Amino acid sequence: MRLGIIGGGQLGRMIALAGYPLDIRSTVLEPGTGSSAAQVCEHIAGEFDDLQALYKLAQASDVVTFEFENVPVESARWLAERVPVFPPSRALEVSQERLAEKQFFQSLGIPTPPFAPIESEADFHRAVAEIGLPAVLKTRRFGYDGKGQAVIRTPDEANAAWQKLGGRPLILEGFVKFDRELSLVAVRGRDGQIVTYPLIENVHIDGILHRSIAPAPDLGEELTERAAEFAARVLTELNYVGVLTIEWFQDGPRLLANEMAPRVHNSGHWTIEGALTSQFENHVRAVCGLPLGRADAVGFSAMYNFIGDALPTPAVLANPDAHLHLYGKSARPGRKIGHVTLRANSAAELQEKLPEWDAQFARK
Amino acid sequence: MRLGIIGGGQLGRMIALAGYPLDIRSTVLEPGTGSSAAQVCEHIAGEFDDLQALYKLAQASDVVTFEFENVPVESARWLAERVPVFPPSRALEVSQERLAEKQFFQSLGIPTPPFAPIESEADFHRAVAEIGLPAVLKTRRFGYDGKGQAVIRTPDEANAAWQKLGGRPLILEGFVKFDRELSLVAVRGRDGQIVTYPLIENVHIDGILHRSIAPAPDLGEELTERAAEFAARVLTELNYVGVLTIEWFQDGPRLLANEMAPRVHNSGHWTIEGALTSQFENHVRAVCGLPLGRADAVGFSAMYNFIGDALPTPAVLANPDAHLHLYGKSARPGRKIGHVTLRANSAAELQEKLPEWDAQFARK
Repeated sequence: MRLGIIGGGQLGRMIALAGYPLDIRSTVLEPGTGSSAAQVCEHIAGEFDDLQALYKLAQASDVVTFEFENVPVESARWLAERVPVFPPSRALEVSQERLAEKQFFQSLGIPTPPFAPIESEADFHRAVAEIGLPAVLKTRRFGYDGKGQAVIRTPDEANAAWQKLGGRPLILEGFVKFDRELSLVAVRGRDGQIVTYPLIENVHIDGILHRSIAPAPDLGEELTERAAEFAARVLTELNYVGVLTIEWFQDGPRLLANEMAPRVHNSGHWTIEGALTSQFENHVRAVCGLPLGRADAVGFSAMYNFIGDALPTPAVLANPDAHLHLYGKSARPGRKIGHVTLRANSAAELQEKLPEWDAQFARK
Repeated sequence: MRLGIIGGGQLGRMIALAGYPLDIRSTVLEPGTGSSAAQVCEHIAGEFDDLQALYKLAQASDVVTFEFENVPVESARWLAERVPVFPPSRALEVSQERLAEKQFFQSLGIPTPPFAPIESEADFHRAVAEIGLPAVLKTRRFGYDGKGQAVIRTPDEANAAWQKLGGRPLILEGFVKFDRELSLVAVRGRDGQIVTYPLIENVHIDGILHRSIAPAPDLGEELTERAAEFAARVLTELNYVGVLTIEWFQDGPRLLANEMAPRVHNSGHWTIEGALTSQFENHVRAVCGLPLGRADAVGFSAMYNFIGDALPTPAVLANPDAHLHLYGKSARPGRKIGHVTLRANSAAELQEKLPEWDAQFARK
């Protein structure tokens, strides 16, 4: 089977690598040459809205997927008239627009932080007064890894935030108190089968994921079940096919949906070694119409991102618990160029080793 | 780092795939196009003794390895003057010639079945008388998967075997009584570090591996340690770098070395899911001069080969314990075109599920 992937980053690379053992060969669409994914599979050079390139991708593929949520919806729709495209384009629409996303969660009875749409400076001041400070002002579209956001703690910061972001469609979100950030990776097959990975605990630094631990420590069964049930509502409502990730704020027994990504996710990289089937293989299985694999954790995993630069490979591999994944990218500030997953046989062993791992893989 | 691989079969494919997460990119040398390995990495078309092709491989590689033991020794030597080549060519020489191999084991104090060199029909009759029947007559070179062998149970079969194989340098091996066949996969790094996987139990059908179970059930610690100690002798004597596999006959508490393969091995495929580090990744780490990974088993695994044809992918993946590996080859009688690894959490669970797995993956 031939899989087309829109986007040539590390997520596309790991999707393509997961396909090979199933004899699924991938072609990525990506403007530049030598991208992370293009190093490991076929490549069509073209912009994501270049109809000629999209046509070539359709010709080279039995099914098409994408590795980032900012794929132009029109491109996905145009492709879907020629070749099956999963996840469905409605998932792109919802996740590309923060307001639509929050309203979508709301419509399914999934709690979110308080939010308000902002069309004007008057809206903004009214919303700040209603929601209170601290709050976060965000662009509605194309924000990721902390870009297009401004945290507002004081009235002065409110003015600065408006100066920075005003004039575009915005959303103000209440800066909720939370114990920690969690994420849930779930998969839905073409036949409606749903498989859910354990909840993951995430730590961000400067808006970029730094460390994930899975299964998240000290979780009640109730929280796990509620997150899975919320995810199932989203997957079913969207008639979704593939991996979907939802990020949550946990506040005691409460889960508040922060955002969703209609794709494999950085916080799910631990599944390569830490789960019976990786998120990448399950995404491939789902979009290709194959039965899904079990998502049970195998032991207890911690994943650290390499941002900007990576530790020297020999130093990483000298750690007997380390599994290294480099993306074939050159070093550049702020760039995700690899990750490492460390696995322990018990939750206690993970907690014991965590300080040492935190020190070795601290963000520089 | 750039890795050159001589040979474009499934072993080369799985070596190349194991390299990517370490940002090691492979180029395979293989005469034909579209080979299993060439589907997943760069490819140089050429015979294994074509100096121009070998030169191109050296230019494209920082280090070169091979995926089969019948690489011309002269080619390995010629390459080694231009680029590091691991494992060393002496390992090729020893394993390409059954007599040299048996004598090599003998010289290291490693027990083997009784054997005798056969240069003439007179040698043959003398050896049959000395070693007794049943016995196996084998060509000394280029035998694999049961080819170039004749089992001799009666004097009539002795004549038939001579008719079939006589005239070439041969070896007669006593057909030893054994409880089962085992194999050991071991790795040695450039710095001399040795890592050994658990012993594997193998079942062959018609001379081709059918099923491997790892760790081999009902093993004493003593047997495991002895096998590892024997392997260490071989690795050290050859100043070996990379994965080496030794096949054994187990007769009660005795281990008799049958043969060795200076490469990753079919009986080690379970390590992809069933060990902390796969044989493929550890081979890549070794030849690239990186620290080796842990070889501990993760649970209990059974691996079945797909010979000639594979079961339909949906049927395989519907088994929740199955991990499928297809090699991108078309179906053809006797051809290895894929394998499946099934994993259990305990030895008891494996034994309980084994009859069902045996039935699902029975050789057709």
